[in-house]
Amino acid sequence: MWAELAPIGRHAGSGGYRRYAWTGADGDCREWFRAQAEARGLAVEVDRNGNQWAWLGDPLAGDAVVTGSHLDSVPDGGAFDGPLGVVSSFAALDELRRRGVEFTKPLAITNFGDEEGARFGLACVGSRLAAGQLTVEAAHRLRDADGVTLPQAMAAAGHDPDAIGPDPERLARIGAFVELHVEQGRALDLTGDPVGIASAIWPHGRWRFDFRGEANHAGTTRLADRRDPMLTYAETVIAARREAELAGALATFGKVAVEPNGVNAIPSLVRGWLDSRAADQDTLDTVVAAVERAAREHAERAGIDLDVVRESFTPVVEFGHALRDELSTLLKGSAHGTGRPVPVLGTGAGHDAGILSASVPTAMLFVRNPTGISHSPAEHAAEDDCVAGVIALADVLEGLACR
Amino acid sequence: MWAELAPIGRHAGSGGYRRYAWTGADGDCREWFRAQAEARGLAVEVDRNGNQWAWLGDPLAGDAVVTGSHLDSVPDGGAFDGPLGVVSSFAALDELRRRGVEFTKPLAITNFGDEEGARFGLACVGSRLAAGQLTVEAAHRLRDADGVTLPQAMAAAGHDPDAIGPDPERLARIGAFVELHVEQGRALDLTGDPVGIASAIWPHGRWRFDFRGEANHAGTTRLADRRDPMLTYAETVIAARREAELAGALATFGKVAVEPNGVNAIPSLVRGWLDSRAADQDTLDTVVAAVERAAREHAERAGIDLDVVRESFTPVVEFGHALRDELSTLLKGSAHGTGRPVPVLGTGAGHDAGILSASVPTAMLFVRNPTGISHSPAEHAAEDDCVAGVIALADVLEGLACR
Repeated sequence: MWAELAPIGRHAGSGGYRRYAWTGADGDCREWFRAQAEARGLAVEVDRNGNQWAWLGDPLAGDAVVTGSHLDSVPDGGAFDGPLGVVSSFAALDELRRRGVEFTKPLAITNFGDEEGARFGLACVGSRLAAGQLTVEAAHRLRDADGVTLPQAMAAAGHDPDAIGPDPERLARIGAFVELHVEQGRALDLTGDPVGIASAIWPHGRWRFDFRGEANHAGTTRLADRRDPMLTYAETVIAARREAELAGALATFGKVAVEPNGVNAIPSLVRGWLDSRAADQDTLDTVVAAVERAAREHAERAGIDLDVVRESFTPVVEFGHALRDELSTLLKGSAHGTGRPVPVLGTGAGHDAGILSASVPTAMLFVRNPTGISHSPAEHAAEDDCVAGVIALADVLEGLACR
Repeated sequence: MWAELAPIGRHAGSGGYRRYAWTGADGDCREWFRAQAEARGLAVEVDRNGNQWAWLGDPLAGDAVVTGSHLDSVPDGGAFDGPLGVVSSFAALDELRRRGVEFTKPLAITNFGDEEGARFGLACVGSRLAAGQLTVEAAHRLRDADGVTLPQAMAAAGHDPDAIGPDPERLARIGAFVELHVEQGRALDLTGDPVGIASAIWPHGRWRFDFRGEANHAGTTRLADRRDPMLTYAETVIAARREAELAGALATFGKVAVEPNGVNAIPSLVRGWLDSRAADQDTLDTVVAAVERAAREHAERAGIDLDVVRESFTPVVEFGHALRDELSTLLKGSAHGTGRPVPVLGTGAGHDAGILSASVPTAMLFVRNPTGISHSPAEHAAEDDCVAGVIALADVLEGLACR
């Protein structure tokens, strides 16, 4: 399966993937999905929001067991984030057929559309629309960097943009959704386990810090007369790292915009975006408040005006304990295991599973990532660990759909 | 004069000027110059490099006394940087005619083209070409942000781009060049003088610091596993300020470019530009070496690769002592004065006078800037100080051209 998927949307220069929603590369990935499903005798459908479903059994029967992930990528992303979950779903079905098990419930494999949000700036558009967490009006307003709207992009790819919207009947027919994903950190590498179960998706948000000073000539303005917002920005970047370390959380300034951004000009404005995440809401609140307090102290001393705006926020997503415990039990006795209980771990990254968990019993499996590197061509998982992931997913699906 | 010049190229939103070389606003400024010259009976010519000259007396006689500055601006620049020198030149001529003096040498007022380099990225293009400090080939390669070349822009404005090049015969006919300019710092404000004489243009340069780390997911990568170049950049910004303070020099990071510059992405590359200037070469070398050393120490600790490239460098320009001393003598006894000797001060900013000083006896007068703000709509000079500047320039021109 990997051989046919590997070249799609791969950029020769970077070696990374550029599979953006509703582009040609995305269409090729969807063709690949259809071919894999049909080769296994599954019935393929595309739902109103552009998500692909491959069915074994009656889609309308209810209490379906669904597994899958996404095939799109971030700019110059790796080969595993998304595709590992889809490939493993097909491979787990192959494994279950090899075992000769009988399905007592309908099974579906999914490819959710536009999970990464690389093109339109919003993640998990396919699952958000289905779950009613993104309105049709807001979706219709999404534009890519070239000004193409989401409806225009959908129409160009042959999908009817007027059909999009909440899909509660479809979600109501799902008894359990399990998404397998390459881990985007090193927790499993540190515990020495090939596979883990997700406990929760950390609460996370982004905050925009606008540092306003006074534009002036860099070659003639005395240091004492300057109100240079770049200095206060720099002090805030360092404060964010320190506060995150103290709290055991994450805080990152990865994006910055400067005005006028001239080599010989003291900036009038430095705008930095803080991404912060933590295992719980209190910790996150503490970190962000501490970063803002440090920024304000430095700003006051330097005569800088500071505005802080929360641009987005996602509260903690706790995956349901019942399904999570069921997975633990199913995996404890299974062939792949290390003998120890499968570790349960949180993650800072968002997923379709996080969106669906508000509507459907949902769980996630993670496969070890030896370097923790993600969203990069260097993203990797060892072949043995991928196989262990397939076996674990097969064990879970057998337990959920065959008894 | 100011009333007709004031609206040209003024941006309604910012209140700043956008008078870029060879644009419509630049053409309007040139028309204003021509009208002012012709109203005074001066003969206007445009030299091969697009600089305007307004002559009283025979341009070919030699030993001419020339004064003037430029009319173009930086993006959203102020009203005084450049225009004050041109307006004061015409006003000084009016003052000399009021005094009824007789000219023994030819006098010219100039408007040098493209001093700020706002459009094509290189400052003092008009004077550099004339002085042979910019080759025709290099000038022909200059492009603006829209990809328009300098020759294309010149041709569109009606100037023959094939005519540009060194103009030694013209420069050889100049006995002295004096440029009056609004001060771009607060030295005169601190000494309480309306007018000063330039000693030197500080040596200055720009250095590009490329901090390379490892792109990764901001939501899942443990702090301990990161190689985040934004942190090292921030530490270097703070180090640059500290080293400049210690040495009594200037150091500024005003421009930065980040890859991939995503809110949830640890950057792979942060590129920052250091602008540094000091009163002498040794001090400048010391500051830049110390900043680079600090950057390398932080980079090493954080696993960041650092490249430092010197992108440009201009050695110190010492204005000739003979002409400078003559100005001091001329101004000591003059009507405008404070009774004290006129202060002699250095500047960190480049000027056409700095370019021409390699070919022609050159001097500069500065007019007090009460805030030191420059390259900004808030740039200002008090009316009394502007008048004092005109009187001082008239005294100098009388001394140089009427005896």
